[in-house]
Amino acid sequence: MRVLNHAGPGALSIALALTLGGAALAQDKDPSDLRVYWKNGLRLENADKSLTLKFGGRIMSDWARFNEEDAPAGISPFDDGTEFRRARLFFEGVIQGTVEFKAQYDFAGGDADFKDVYIGLLGIPGVDSLRFGHQKEPFSLEEQTSSKYMTFMERALPNAFSPERNTGVRAAGTGLQERLTWSAGAFTETDGFGDSEDMDSGANLTGRITGLPLWQDGGARALHLGLSATRKAATGDTLRFSQRPEAHLASTYIDTGAMAADSALILDAEVAWVHDIVSVQGEYMTADVDAPAAGDPSFSGAYVQASVFLTGEHRAYKRSDGAFDRVRPGKNFGKGGAGAWELAARYSTLDLTDAAIAGGELKDLTLGVNWYLNPNARFMLNYVKADLSNRAGIPDNDEFSAVMLRFQVDF
Amino acid sequence: MRVLNHAGPGALSIALALTLGGAALAQDKDPSDLRVYWKNGLRLENADKSLTLKFGGRIMSDWARFNEEDAPAGISPFDDGTEFRRARLFFEGVIQGTVEFKAQYDFAGGDADFKDVYIGLLGIPGVDSLRFGHQKEPFSLEEQTSSKYMTFMERALPNAFSPERNTGVRAAGTGLQERLTWSAGAFTETDGFGDSEDMDSGANLTGRITGLPLWQDGGARALHLGLSATRKAATGDTLRFSQRPEAHLASTYIDTGAMAADSALILDAEVAWVHDIVSVQGEYMTADVDAPAAGDPSFSGAYVQASVFLTGEHRAYKRSDGAFDRVRPGKNFGKGGAGAWELAARYSTLDLTDAAIAGGELKDLTLGVNWYLNPNARFMLNYVKADLSNRAGIPDNDEFSAVMLRFQVDF
Amino acid sequence: MRVLNHAGPGALSIALALTLGGAALAQDKDPSDLRVYWKNGLRLENADKSLTLKFGGRIMSDWARFNEEDAPAGISPFDDGTEFRRARLFFEGVIQGTVEFKAQYDFAGGDADFKDVYIGLLGIPGVDSLRFGHQKEPFSLEEQTSSKYMTFMERALPNAFSPERNTGVRAAGTGLQERLTWSAGAFTETDGFGDSEDMDSGANLTGRITGLPLWQDGGARALHLGLSATRKAATGDTLRFSQRPEAHLASTYIDTGAMAADSALILDAEVAWVHDIVSVQGEYMTADVDAPAAGDPSFSGAYVQASVFLTGEHRAYKRSDGAFDRVRPGKNFGKGGAGAWELAARYSTLDLTDAAIAGGELKDLTLGVNWYLNPNARFMLNYVKADLSNRAGIPDNDEFSAVMLRFQVDF
Repeated sequence: MRVLNHAGPGALSIALALTLGGAALAQDKDPSDLRVYWKNGLRLENADKSLTLKFGGRIMSDWARFNEEDAPAGISPFDDGTEFRRARLFFEGVIQGTVEFKAQYDFAGGDADFKDVYIGLLGIPGVDSLRFGHQKEPFSLEEQTSSKYMTFMERALPNAFSPERNTGVRAAGTGLQERLTWSAGAFTETDGFGDSEDMDSGANLTGRITGLPLWQDGGARALHLGLSATRKAATGDTLRFSQRPEAHLASTYIDTGAMAADSALILDAEVAWVHDIVSVQGEYMTADVDAPAAGDPSFSGAYVQASVFLTGEHRAYKRSDGAFDRVRPGKNFGKGGAGAWELAARYSTLDLTDAAIAGGELKDLTLGVNWYLNPNARFMLNYVKADLSNRAGIPDNDEFSAVMLRFQVDF
Repeated sequence: MRVLNHAGPGALSIALALTLGGAALAQDKDPSDLRVYWKNGLRLENADKSLTLKFGGRIMSDWARFNEEDAPAGISPFDDGTEFRRARLFFEGVIQGTVEFKAQYDFAGGDADFKDVYIGLLGIPGVDSLRFGHQKEPFSLEEQTSSKYMTFMERALPNAFSPERNTGVRAAGTGLQERLTWSAGAFTETDGFGDSEDMDSGANLTGRITGLPLWQDGGARALHLGLSATRKAATGDTLRFSQRPEAHLASTYIDTGAMAADSALILDAEVAWVHDIVSVQGEYMTADVDAPAAGDPSFSGAYVQASVFLTGEHRAYKRSDGAFDRVRPGKNFGKGGAGAWELAARYSTLDLTDAAIAGGELKDLTLGVNWYLNPNARFMLNYVKADLSNRAGIPDNDEFSAVMLRFQVDF
Repeated sequence: MRVLNHAGPGALSIALALTLGGAALAQDKDPSDLRVYWKNGLRLENADKSLTLKFGGRIMSDWARFNEEDAPAGISPFDDGTEFRRARLFFEGVIQGTVEFKAQYDFAGGDADFKDVYIGLLGIPGVDSLRFGHQKEPFSLEEQTSSKYMTFMERALPNAFSPERNTGVRAAGTGLQERLTWSAGAFTETDGFGDSEDMDSGANLTGRITGLPLWQDGGARALHLGLSATRKAATGDTLRFSQRPEAHLASTYIDTGAMAADSALILDAEVAWVHDIVSVQGEYMTADVDAPAAGDPSFSGAYVQASVFLTGEHRAYKRSDGAFDRVRPGKNFGKGGAGAWELAARYSTLDLTDAAIAGGELKDLTLGVNWYLNPNARFMLNYVKADLSNRAGIPDNDEFSAVMLRFQVDF
């Protein structure tokens, strides 16, 4: 009927035609019908958007070439190789506007690793979502940013402290017109499939708060500040931190070993700044371990990174998540466009040697080039140079390097 | 053209408009086009419904707290824990109206357990469906009722006798205007992935017949009677029955051990009664094992359960399956509704001690509260108290108890 | 507006009605909307077809009965059995008309075997597709023909030489109006999940070229000629060829064992001829192994097969792939049709005994009946008779036989 308004001084015959045309359309339309469309992935929704579904996945095919001879003695040398770093499928949605779900599995390596398998309630006053099940603990800007959108192939060295995904309950919300996000939860440390029969040391208690003192031009100019904290529970009465040299096909490079411990308190300060084509991001983390037998060691790590888009884009940020989002090239590759090109550099450090623990100290320099063909596909080239020291039984070494290539698509 | 009838004494211009509008619509429509809609899950169908597809899955995230100290000596104590009880994705459909298929995999625990992977023929005279592949053997009301729709978190103790899913061929049909169902099949006992290289002891031969002496108001008042029987073949020349105390995170509690046997004859009598908000259900099973060395033992088990909906719903029953179906809350949670609330109690028993076998006897009392947020999501709270006796080498015990919580969504 | 042309001398009122009807339709239409349809599987596409998606899978449920007593001494006897030969799901598509992807996993046996997981670039001048990731190496007509469309349940004995799928890069194109195809690539020999940390012996270098000297009536009459070649790299400094007797539930029958080697050069000549209901196909392969310690052995194999459709169809061939395609029955099963019926016979041979290697020689005769219910479902019955000789330590044997049944659906 609204259409009639456009008709102006139309004739009766027009009005009738529309009415009947509407009837004919109604034969095809049903409240349960779903609109099927593509928005950086396959999506479905009903007319009032109370039901939404997404189905898709991601593929990351990696190649690495190592400067093997220089691997420190005592660390098993690693070979050049190829791997599927991630090979995921997911199905997620919102039912009745009140219940959300996500089921994502990663088939890399041949098993079905759980990567978010949860049920959530929406619309509880003051809480945007309350999720039960397997999910990321709310800790660290870099961890909350999807691997699809990371600037480098691997997260920085301090990510060793991140609790990553576990099974539990998490509440999250936003405030001040999405200038502020908060999230908090309790989790049980689980295996890769979300299961655990070890709840003796209590729960991981984790929370994060972020703010946007600056937000202009849809994020083309933004300043992000964040604080994360977690009380990480021991499993099997031990805690352990270890890390590869920002090369997943390489072996573990520094490692505290299993420390008889009850828990650790881990803190993280986050900052990120976007100014058009340029962005800078950094985090600083400390981990105080309640391990009396090892002298209650304190570990720490930090990274700082910068990137610049040669083709005019800026890094995208999702305010409801307090994390970075998908890069959309100004012009997609093909039909005359070249996609988006980004240069990036990162320096990161992680020190796992303190008190009675000599897990080693690692300093990494990473250089990267990213070619975004379109919002869903990119090629990544990373060069990593790692400098190891202070690890018990391993001579100091400043020669390890790797060149790595990734073909990535998400759908 | 049918629309013209509504037009009554319309003008020529209207008829033309409709004709042309129809032509415009036809440009978009193609016989291969599929309607996409939501009906408790994602579905697709073509215009004449000869092609139908469903895609979806289920998530069940469980938490259990055990009264550990009271676990009987000799049974490894079990720890409080969390697990994904089921984490499935499926794709099923009917092609050309004559061939059906289903491919469902359960990724809980990280592998891809087969949970119905079959091909079927429809429309053979007298047979509604003839299915080849991995599927449930037609045995037991509780087994035929999907885990999505069970009243309690776990099936009752006698389910130890159910052959569950195997690879084989199964025919099924209905009669007397769906007041009667029958199904029968031959199956090879397979591993969790539908494979077997042990066919020495012959096939499992299994059949089931059910009737509805009472069926009123779309199932608000119904009486179900059923009989199931199976000749269960040995694998590796042995048979074994065992059972957990209706708590999946717990260990096996009673167990015949491997009995040198050729086969067992298992019978099951089923009854269920729905009277508006109230329902009662029970089954009685016996297993006669052809195991001369063990004195040809006979085992048995039974359960009876009752439930009541506080919010006015009744348990739903699917006549073509002869089994219970999805509960649809009168008012969904959110936007003023509270969902459906159900209270339930069950008493079940399983006796695996007879002749030379002293596998133990277990009696369980289970209390449950179910909150159905909408047709696709529910929270379940179960309390189980188990009483063990007559198991060789294990002292009698009547103290085990567990509190369990489930977050469930299917989509 | 185009519709108006059909209206001929129509009235103003009609034009207005169409305009407004068009506006009403446009409210529902969006450039991101996808058409959802079925074409031998579920497909989606946007209006300009720059985005296309396919989602589906395949199920093959096999049964085998062996003539066990006659298994040669020294080869572990194999038991009658059932298995899911393939149980796959896939999601593939083209984004922006320039980037293609495929993610296919096979869950048979309970793990997620990678079966094409790649990213590709389309539209590079002179190259139809350039694919990075896990994919088939371009070798052998039979290997390039999908298992969905093979005439027999298993590929012929010489397929032991085929490099099958690995992770790498592959370029492919067509020429002479699709009368010619070429493809070439470099690959790393990987495990079943596309991963490898052994690149010491260099890459597999593989290429294939095919031509169609005859192509009439949409392929009802066609002659295919092809040449494939691969330089297969050693893994762990060894190469090994082995083969089952064209029965996957049986054990390996002939086997070179691990040969200390650097690489092998494998050549393949392909020919296939379709003349209406009749087809003939054959390949001849040789493998020259660079294994000085074993006397640089040369192995070879060949097969020839013929089939006839009793119901009038012909084998379908896909020109862009240079391989056989889906059989479409003239009349589908159900509603009066009988589907398509095909009889086939094959003779194949594989000789793995040469120089210092006595892996054995195998000659197989296979007879098959295929019943295609519709384009997506078929039942296959195969009889295989195998004749083993010249294997070190195993007496010659000409008695092995198997009867095998497959239920297949793809969707």
